[in-house]
Amino acid sequence: MRWWGWGHDGVSFTHEDKPALGGFLRQRIDLDVSGVTSVPVAFEDLRITEPSLSPGLQAALEQALGGGPASTDPLDRLEHARGKSLRDLVRHRRGELGRLPDVVVRPGDEDQVAAVLRAALDADAVLIPFGGGTSISGSLEASEEEERTVISLDLSRLSGVLAVDAASRLARIQAGAFGPDLERQLNARGWTLGHFPDSFTHSTLGGWIATRSSGMQSDRYGDIGDLTRAVRVVTPAGLLVTRPVPSTSTGPSVREMVLGSEGRLGVITEATLHVRRVPEQRIILGYLFPTWADGLAAMQDIAASEAAVSVTRVSDASETAFSFATRKRPSILDRLKSKALTTYLRRRHGFDVEAMCLSFIGYEGSRRHVEAQRKLVGRIVGRHGGVCIGSSPGELYDQKKFDTPYIRDFLL
Amino acid sequence: MRWWGWGHDGVSFTHEDKPALGGFLRQRIDLDVSGVTSVPVAFEDLRITEPSLSPGLQAALEQALGGGPASTDPLDRLEHARGKSLRDLVRHRRGELGRLPDVVVRPGDEDQVAAVLRAALDADAVLIPFGGGTSISGSLEASEEEERTVISLDLSRLSGVLAVDAASRLARIQAGAFGPDLERQLNARGWTLGHFPDSFTHSTLGGWIATRSSGMQSDRYGDIGDLTRAVRVVTPAGLLVTRPVPSTSTGPSVREMVLGSEGRLGVITEATLHVRRVPEQRIILGYLFPTWADGLAAMQDIAASEAAVSVTRVSDASETAFSFATRKRPSILDRLKSKALTTYLRRRHGFDVEAMCLSFIGYEGSRRHVEAQRKLVGRIVGRHGGVCIGSSPGELYDQKKFDTPYIRDFLL
Repeated sequence: MRWWGWGHDGVSFTHEDKPALGGFLRQRIDLDVSGVTSVPVAFEDLRITEPSLSPGLQAALEQALGGGPASTDPLDRLEHARGKSLRDLVRHRRGELGRLPDVVVRPGDEDQVAAVLRAALDADAVLIPFGGGTSISGSLEASEEEERTVISLDLSRLSGVLAVDAASRLARIQAGAFGPDLERQLNARGWTLGHFPDSFTHSTLGGWIATRSSGMQSDRYGDIGDLTRAVRVVTPAGLLVTRPVPSTSTGPSVREMVLGSEGRLGVITEATLHVRRVPEQRIILGYLFPTWADGLAAMQDIAASEAAVSVTRVSDASETAFSFATRKRPSILDRLKSKALTTYLRRRHGFDVEAMCLSFIGYEGSRRHVEAQRKLVGRIVGRHGGVCIGSSPGELYDQKKFDTPYIRDFLL
Repeated sequence: MRWWGWGHDGVSFTHEDKPALGGFLRQRIDLDVSGVTSVPVAFEDLRITEPSLSPGLQAALEQALGGGPASTDPLDRLEHARGKSLRDLVRHRRGELGRLPDVVVRPGDEDQVAAVLRAALDADAVLIPFGGGTSISGSLEASEEEERTVISLDLSRLSGVLAVDAASRLARIQAGAFGPDLERQLNARGWTLGHFPDSFTHSTLGGWIATRSSGMQSDRYGDIGDLTRAVRVVTPAGLLVTRPVPSTSTGPSVREMVLGSEGRLGVITEATLHVRRVPEQRIILGYLFPTWADGLAAMQDIAASEAAVSVTRVSDASETAFSFATRKRPSILDRLKSKALTTYLRRRHGFDVEAMCLSFIGYEGSRRHVEAQRKLVGRIVGRHGGVCIGSSPGELYDQKKFDTPYIRDFLL
């Protein structure tokens, strides 16, 4: 992950292959795309303070890591200093780095996590758990005035799917597993977690739990709180283990105290999660509604209906216009189809093209099931004046759905 | 509710109209039904201690209740002393009453609950919230050694459905509402909560939340934890109100600390719950499986399938035999049908009648939806050697499902 922005080096969002975008941005937010995007301060020009790390603590950390390194590398420290909120990015790009962590450690198992925590407690140091670094709540950043040593505990080495219990449909997964890796491991055994937050490609299971994440397919799979059936947390008071069973109906929920705790209670090392079989079919269809109110009413009716869907989203008119403005240079056929669609919507359905709202609805399961749900949804959409525009926009959405954060870097 | 057992006066379970039950009980647990059930000590013979209630606290409570009574009536105190666990009943019937509450109060609104709590705090008294009195966890009973005044706070006057937000499908309901009353109020507006624990007829919403209740239709509606979106709790530190929204995805859950808290954190006065439209159709079908393992495997497959069901339960062979043994005197037609069924199961399907397991599966929704789910389930049941035995056993189960606790009184 880039220290000054989102995602992989070499991947970026640009207006150059999107002929309508320049005009749209000028008209809507008075931004001239031909001007230069603000350039982040070069890494070499950053003022990176010396780490505050006593030889004793350094030795204790390295012992906790079984001899592994306690990194004080400047780039490592910089990359672990903050999350990816707008505020984080603006300050980082300006070179306003705040209180960098002094040292980054990457334990290889739960015992090493516990040993690192003990070393931190013994030295009265600050320990900040770090998953994928996509936090937008400021939880990765130490206070500017912090005088104690700040340790960033990176969980990326704890990335395994440890076991799947097919009868209970529960998987034990380590907290440092990134979204794509976690799904790959589960898919290889025929299972899926089905949790797809916007940050999916660059965030981890532990981060999802610590921030009580919600995903694009939570209509079907539930939020991370619904999926997480048990946690293991290394805390200053010892190892906290909640019972890894599919369901309980007694007592206050300790699991629900850990969910959303933002790393405050300890370091989540592992969780037991409800998994499902990889569906036979998976499609996302695009729909258009005449107005935002129509789209919203349709979504509510779908939620209250007997239709089982995996994704329901509807954009307001501004977001819809933005989506259309980001289309790449269309072929002549595309343009003809698009013109025909616009004419059709205006003449046949009385759509005001400025007010219309784009919606995506996803379906998963056996072919028969998907077909039945599409019909149920189709009737509801029709009642609210909506029109299905087929699977191509949905496929595009599905391919690009994790790329939205790149747009922010382009706009900064 | 009877102080020594379950349910309404005049309702009881008897072997007299069940010709097969006597033999079954003799064979299985060596119990002779012609012998006399142990008779509870008569109310008049109970040793009910004088209440320990200072005139000052009595006056403070009556003021908190707006002049209403603070009851020290012996039967009132007895009925509020315990829940309905086996241990509670055995001791009550023997006349071993333990530490009775000294006084019973019935506030009429949340302000009165808060005023009662303040009076209790000021007098260093013990306050025990009381819903329907069906607790099986011992939470209604003060310690035998308790020397402070014990106040039982009965919430039955807080019984209203206050509002239904149709767009968010959320209902605000007072904590003292009993199951049947709550459903009646919701049904009258076209809604249902769909929470049906075994104790339904004699338990309250606040009790369900305080004990983290699970119900017979939780397959469809979720447990009370899933249904409860927000709570209002009068605590010693003030009124605790969680945000009444359908869903959140930040922070640890305070709501989930109140769920299952057994009255420890305060008095739940109101909750906001997810409600659904009353379904067009509702049926429960009976199924038979050759063995417990087959039945269990079928239930797991149904849970993992695309079928949406409202009830899934399967009895083991003993419970199945008990169910058949509790049938009332059958008509000649019944006997012929039953004999034909047994022969059919043995000859056609190779069932061992001693090993077979009875199952009930419920369906709800539009007729089309119910029909589709029945077909899906039918295929799964068939794969595990199960046979549908129609709707009559399911109707009987549905009528009698809340009467099971009466059997315990009969057996004591």
